[in-house]
Amino acid sequence: MEKPRSSVVEQLRPLFRPRTVAVVGASRKPEKIGYQVVRNLMEGGFPRDRIFPINPYADEILGLKAYPSVKDVPEEVDLAVICVPARIVFDVVRDCGEKGVKAIAMITAGFGEVGNVEEERRLVELVRSYGMRLLGPNIVGVCDTVNRMNASFCQALPPPGDIAFITQSGALGIALVGWTIMERIGLSDLVSVGNKADVDDADLLEFFAHDPHTRAIALYIEGVKNGRRFFETARRVSKQKPIVALKAGRSERGAAAAASHTGALAGADRIYDAAFQQSGIIRAYTIDQLFDWCIALASQPPPRKRPVVIVTNGGGAGVMATDACADYGLALEDPPDDLKNVFRQYMPPFGSTRNPIDLTGMARRDEYYGAVLTALQHSWVGAVIVLYCHTAITTPREVADAILDAIRQAKVDKPVTVSFIGGAEADEASDYLRQNRVPCYPTPERAVAAMGALYRRAEYLGLLRD
Amino acid sequence: MEKPRSSVVEQLRPLFRPRTVAVVGASRKPEKIGYQVVRNLMEGGFPRDRIFPINPYADEILGLKAYPSVKDVPEEVDLAVICVPARIVFDVVRDCGEKGVKAIAMITAGFGEVGNVEEERRLVELVRSYGMRLLGPNIVGVCDTVNRMNASFCQALPPPGDIAFITQSGALGIALVGWTIMERIGLSDLVSVGNKADVDDADLLEFFAHDPHTRAIALYIEGVKNGRRFFETARRVSKQKPIVALKAGRSERGAAAAASHTGALAGADRIYDAAFQQSGIIRAYTIDQLFDWCIALASQPPPRKRPVVIVTNGGGAGVMATDACADYGLALEDPPDDLKNVFRQYMPPFGSTRNPIDLTGMARRDEYYGAVLTALQHSWVGAVIVLYCHTAITTPREVADAILDAIRQAKVDKPVTVSFIGGAEADEASDYLRQNRVPCYPTPERAVAAMGALYRRAEYLGLLRD
Repeated sequence: MEKPRSSVVEQLRPLFRPRTVAVVGASRKPEKIGYQVVRNLMEGGFPRDRIFPINPYADEILGLKAYPSVKDVPEEVDLAVICVPARIVFDVVRDCGEKGVKAIAMITAGFGEVGNVEEERRLVELVRSYGMRLLGPNIVGVCDTVNRMNASFCQALPPPGDIAFITQSGALGIALVGWTIMERIGLSDLVSVGNKADVDDADLLEFFAHDPHTRAIALYIEGVKNGRRFFETARRVSKQKPIVALKAGRSERGAAAAASHTGALAGADRIYDAAFQQSGIIRAYTIDQLFDWCIALASQPPPRKRPVVIVTNGGGAGVMATDACADYGLALEDPPDDLKNVFRQYMPPFGSTRNPIDLTGMARRDEYYGAVLTALQHSWVGAVIVLYCHTAITTPREVADAILDAIRQAKVDKPVTVSFIGGAEADEASDYLRQNRVPCYPTPERAVAAMGALYRRAEYLGLLRD
Repeated sequence: MEKPRSSVVEQLRPLFRPRTVAVVGASRKPEKIGYQVVRNLMEGGFPRDRIFPINPYADEILGLKAYPSVKDVPEEVDLAVICVPARIVFDVVRDCGEKGVKAIAMITAGFGEVGNVEEERRLVELVRSYGMRLLGPNIVGVCDTVNRMNASFCQALPPPGDIAFITQSGALGIALVGWTIMERIGLSDLVSVGNKADVDDADLLEFFAHDPHTRAIALYIEGVKNGRRFFETARRVSKQKPIVALKAGRSERGAAAAASHTGALAGADRIYDAAFQQSGIIRAYTIDQLFDWCIALASQPPPRKRPVVIVTNGGGAGVMATDACADYGLALEDPPDDLKNVFRQYMPPFGSTRNPIDLTGMARRDEYYGAVLTALQHSWVGAVIVLYCHTAITTPREVADAILDAIRQAKVDKPVTVSFIGGAEADEASDYLRQNRVPCYPTPERAVAAMGALYRRAEYLGLLRD
């Protein structure tokens, strides 16, 4: 059943940006998911007067008026979050349909993932017969930071930001919320897709491609259901916005494990690999890479030229970054003589202009500012990687300011990634750079790998001139 | 000039475990290294009455009595830290020799690394003529957490622990001190080797092999000077203690960069690769791996059997760990039926006993305790990897306690690595596990990779039975 594209965005808006939310199966018992979802919606900051708990045996839940059926709600309901037992799901979906609910997020499990494939098919049929859309079943919910809607059993919302994270693993989704808070990684949405019975990855790509709050899309997937549609959509969407996917189940046994716990066919890995490449999806292999790369892709322009310049105050960090450039296919060459001559102004005689540009341990604010500005402004340079080992001679914050000033002063559209190596002070300065939309990482290889993702995007978009 | 082994340990003891330290070139000016070293020694906790600042123009430095020459110090001097300008180095070394100083740590730069090879050779000759040993020149110093001796310009000591970290990059060494504090990675010593004019990596391996405070040795190297002696020593030492090396300059350009900034020949990477393997050195490719693996190797016994069991509460984390097992050559197989039957007691009907053992998101303390204890006690199992996604149903601390209880109860000598995926609470529980000598990491692949290092060690030691 092919769905027209333009309408997908309209159909999914009530799912991610609803005005009103009913929680069907709301509960007064704190250990129940139906309690947690109401509490999370309230604590997340969604307006109280637009949350409607549904429970035939309660008048009030967490201080909110409860209704026996969604049909009794006096206002229009955009989104119904369903967490009733599987046996009464069909009844409440019918109620939703009759009420005119626009979209359903179904936390309830017990369908395709445990072999009840036929029941899941009937469920989708019922939902569609009312013109509704269904996320799930078997999800942990939806976290939308734009309207502060935590319609999930994740204990908190991720920090607001511009990465949409779509995950096929619910437990991973919940666990990573805490991680995004600790690591200060901003998300526009966190979507648990569950069994993808109706809304699937292709629909979500379509929605987030058009979402003004999202600049990069992160996918954790174990298998896609309608491969052809997914990759056709991805090919189109990745022209507009970067997509990074962590596809688990790469190994034979991993694929079998994925198939057993999601019910989805995982498929041969090299087929995925080729399809990712053709459709412009950048493939990550670890959770760190998935978010590292999205952070860079969401904030930096793709490069237009091959040559990368590395600026460092530590020879060792420079050597490690050089190795990583070889691993990720980045072009590190000796700069032209005129550029070398300018770099020389910013280092003592025992520095190096050979790329990595080694400003040496003597480098302070002015040397970083001068070298980064010089690199950004020179026409030979495509991109700049800045490395800084926290030494006693300067503070990370000073160097962070020097980098930001140089970027502002240069007024060019070239990507920059940074690595600050050190302790708590370096970590704070790194956070400060990220808040100012400059991606900063704790090790040189991660800054290089993120730049590698920017180059792969530039290649896909055909932007690189020689 | 071959040095007898047994004496190397004796010769280096004054360098790393000195009773008294003279700072030659101590200064009253806070911006000078000669000031910082005295301050760092005092602030680090080294006894004030065993620190002797040497400066012919000062009576007192930072409240300590200063002496015009090391020869004027009224006590025996074990270690002299030298930070005078290069031009007067020969004079102060002669003074040290005449005083009977046992070892020199030379921060002063300007020798082999800038081409003054002949001067460096003469320096070593002079040092040896007095029977002293020399670390450096061109180092940031020595941090010994055992006696709280910060004889360096690193602003603080790393946390105390059992990993000796030897680094050829000074800036990296300084920056990583802050990092070890933030990441709570305990070191016995941090040694900056500088130009390795006299004391080299082989000497250091020998010393730390015999040091009772060190259980694993981490090396950051760009090149070794006397390859044959180094690898022969490593082959012997790695039988006693695990060695992990991050060898930078893997790529052609990286090797050239390393050669330019340390003056050492970096050499063809595949030769290093083969030599590492033959000598039992485990090769890391990133800073994270270097320390991740040392933490596991320092705290866990090597496995004796191939089969690994993964216990998880999240299918996705299990799939990612399974992929990583394939990457790192770990044997993940279906457990024997009797073991499966016991596992079944600790999970709901929709769990999986197929390895990864998926306890599902329902798992709490008791299920983790039961499953981990079962795995550890079963004779088929060689090692256990425990994964936990922080969900609303339990706290990371409860699961950490369950794992520790199971390990204590099992009373077996099998390695365990853990991954806790989540936010601040998971991070605290992870720290708690590490304090209790159970290595815990923030992502599944890192727990698997650390287990991979334990298997490589077991292979080198010939411990694995089939």
